[in-house]
Amino acid sequence: MREIGLDALDDIARGSGILGTGGGGDPYVGRLLAEAAITRCGPVSLVTVDEVPPDAVVVPVSMLGAPTVGQEKLPNGTETRTALRALEQATGTAATHLVPIEIGGMNSLVPLALAAETGLPVVDGDAMGRAFPEAQMVLPTLVGIPTCPMAVTDDKGNTLVLHAVSNLWAERIARAVCVATGCSVFTADTVMTGAQLTDGLVAGTITLAERLGAAVRTARAEHADPVTAVADLLGGVRLIGGKVVDVHRATTGGFARGDATVVGEDGELRLSFQNEYLLAERDGKVVATTPDLICVLETDSGEPITTETMRYGNRVTVLAVDCDPRWTTPAGLELVGPRYFGYDHDYQPLPATDSRGGPTGFPT
Amino acid sequence: MREIGLDALDDIARGSGILGTGGGGDPYVGRLLAEAAITRCGPVSLVTVDEVPPDAVVVPVSMLGAPTVGQEKLPNGTETRTALRALEQATGTAATHLVPIEIGGMNSLVPLALAAETGLPVVDGDAMGRAFPEAQMVLPTLVGIPTCPMAVTDDKGNTLVLHAVSNLWAERIARAVCVATGCSVFTADTVMTGAQLTDGLVAGTITLAERLGAAVRTARAEHADPVTAVADLLGGVRLIGGKVVDVHRATTGGFARGDATVVGEDGELRLSFQNEYLLAERDGKVVATTPDLICVLETDSGEPITTETMRYGNRVTVLAVDCDPRWTTPAGLELVGPRYFGYDHDYQPLPATDSRGGPTGFPT
Repeated sequence: MREIGLDALDDIARGSGILGTGGGGDPYVGRLLAEAAITRCGPVSLVTVDEVPPDAVVVPVSMLGAPTVGQEKLPNGTETRTALRALEQATGTAATHLVPIEIGGMNSLVPLALAAETGLPVVDGDAMGRAFPEAQMVLPTLVGIPTCPMAVTDDKGNTLVLHAVSNLWAERIARAVCVATGCSVFTADTVMTGAQLTDGLVAGTITLAERLGAAVRTARAEHADPVTAVADLLGGVRLIGGKVVDVHRATTGGFARGDATVVGEDGELRLSFQNEYLLAERDGKVVATTPDLICVLETDSGEPITTETMRYGNRVTVLAVDCDPRWTTPAGLELVGPRYFGYDHDYQPLPATDSRGGPTGFPT
Repeated sequence: MREIGLDALDDIARGSGILGTGGGGDPYVGRLLAEAAITRCGPVSLVTVDEVPPDAVVVPVSMLGAPTVGQEKLPNGTETRTALRALEQATGTAATHLVPIEIGGMNSLVPLALAAETGLPVVDGDAMGRAFPEAQMVLPTLVGIPTCPMAVTDDKGNTLVLHAVSNLWAERIARAVCVATGCSVFTADTVMTGAQLTDGLVAGTITLAERLGAAVRTARAEHADPVTAVADLLGGVRLIGGKVVDVHRATTGGFARGDATVVGEDGELRLSFQNEYLLAERDGKVVATTPDLICVLETDSGEPITTETMRYGNRVTVLAVDCDPRWTTPAGLELVGPRYFGYDHDYQPLPATDSRGGPTGFPT
């Protein structure tokens, strides 16, 4: 157990933005939420998966929606508390721990904000090891843990508790509610016992995010290359360094969907996204796909660039990083592989580490 | 109190179809549901509003969706029971009575089917005195009775309990869920105490539907005019008798929307609908609007023609009938008047009874 105070939030937000592969919401809004709550209520206890008792009741809380909307339509700050209470009332069981459903800019920090308010500890981990756009795209789905009961609440105070017949139906119904109420809602769902966390979480990702954020901060302070600092920690493949020359983006069906083109000295990279970057094609050939992480960093600063903030002229470096190995099993790929998203490509593993080139883990 | 058995269902279904002004779902499907339940479980007790104790817990159950879809996507038969149980669990209170939310072909009969199964009595009345397309369009809204908690369930077993901040938000969210799950769901909502029924219901409409259905049946058996029999009971204005020459219909946003044209010897009538017939224009001039009832009957048989079954070649008579007077108050018109539906017309009362002409209550 350790405490997370105000001083850790910047690093966690930045690192979560990197691991969020362009999604998970705006880290800035997430940091503001956590900052306000910790300032008001004090620091948060972060516990490792090993420290959680088997009969603990662990509740992920998160924002669900289109990050393009989440940027402008700010939460009122009470949504996660309302969602958690509705879930607890429906199940008749009180939460003992909170946890992020995904590591993404906003969604890593949302549970920290609620934890400060409620005094509940947060488990160091998340249910994806990155961010994905849909509610059923979590490791718990792979081991049969249901999304429902799922509490959904919006900024106006509309609240519902859903019992769907499958995790995919939970996503479909929650997404419809999300779109009807303004494209961003908050949820509490996918309740796990402590005993289920080994299967249901990627452990240690809040700490990993904090280390990533700190590495970028340190590199900048030392006039070193922050992108190399990230690659040193994550072991990624550098797909391109260059300038964003084109972005198509639309908010449709409750998602931010689109594509972007980066042109560099060594060619052109096309990125396709649905909240998260999902596919990278280099000069027309697929070089990285979901579920591997496609991380877009501002080349000079190492700051993550989300799919809703990317714009013409951004100087970026794109890294591809191996995902949690459970995602590249046949069941994992069925849930989150490129074909699920409608891309006519099979999953393509990144090149083996020893063929990636230079000392930083990616070709120079 | 009286019993409703199998022999009453045909008349109730036909009469509900007439009062449903084209909406409320397919009376045929409703009759099948009620028939199956009464055959299996025995007849239903129908009680008058006066017979309901003030502390009774009266629950409307109904289908919500596009009747065009409801025609083809049949209920599995357990939806209303699931919705009622979810609502009872959320409120911690057991229903003592059921009631139709509207008088419409299917929705008059849905509570009878559930009543046969559960043994609960049904209150003789409904919350509209006709059918309207949206969930907030009920007399309870006019007196501040909330739609929520609202239980929604679909044919697959997806179930949710909604607490919305207003009756309009309940409609919006339930409609979004309805569209996401296939455009027809079942709901239990707008719980009333016995003491609230005088304000919340139009009393006696199940019996009125039965009398209408019987009048049509009797007129046919006696080779009399069934349309006149309906008009004798309802005192309607005859807008036209003629042939349907054009129908535009689309299933959009969870509704069956469109318009139809009837040509007769004495001119042309254009009907606009959203689940229900809402506006009638004769040779370009508005002659009847929501909330008054616009009822389309097959001229020869007196059978009601719903908006989803109307087709080219139907020989029809269109009647307009005064609605419950609470709907023509300013608050009533704001909720269900023509402008709410986007028609650029004010509500126009039907001509006074004594100016309607002939002995049957409508011009000959």
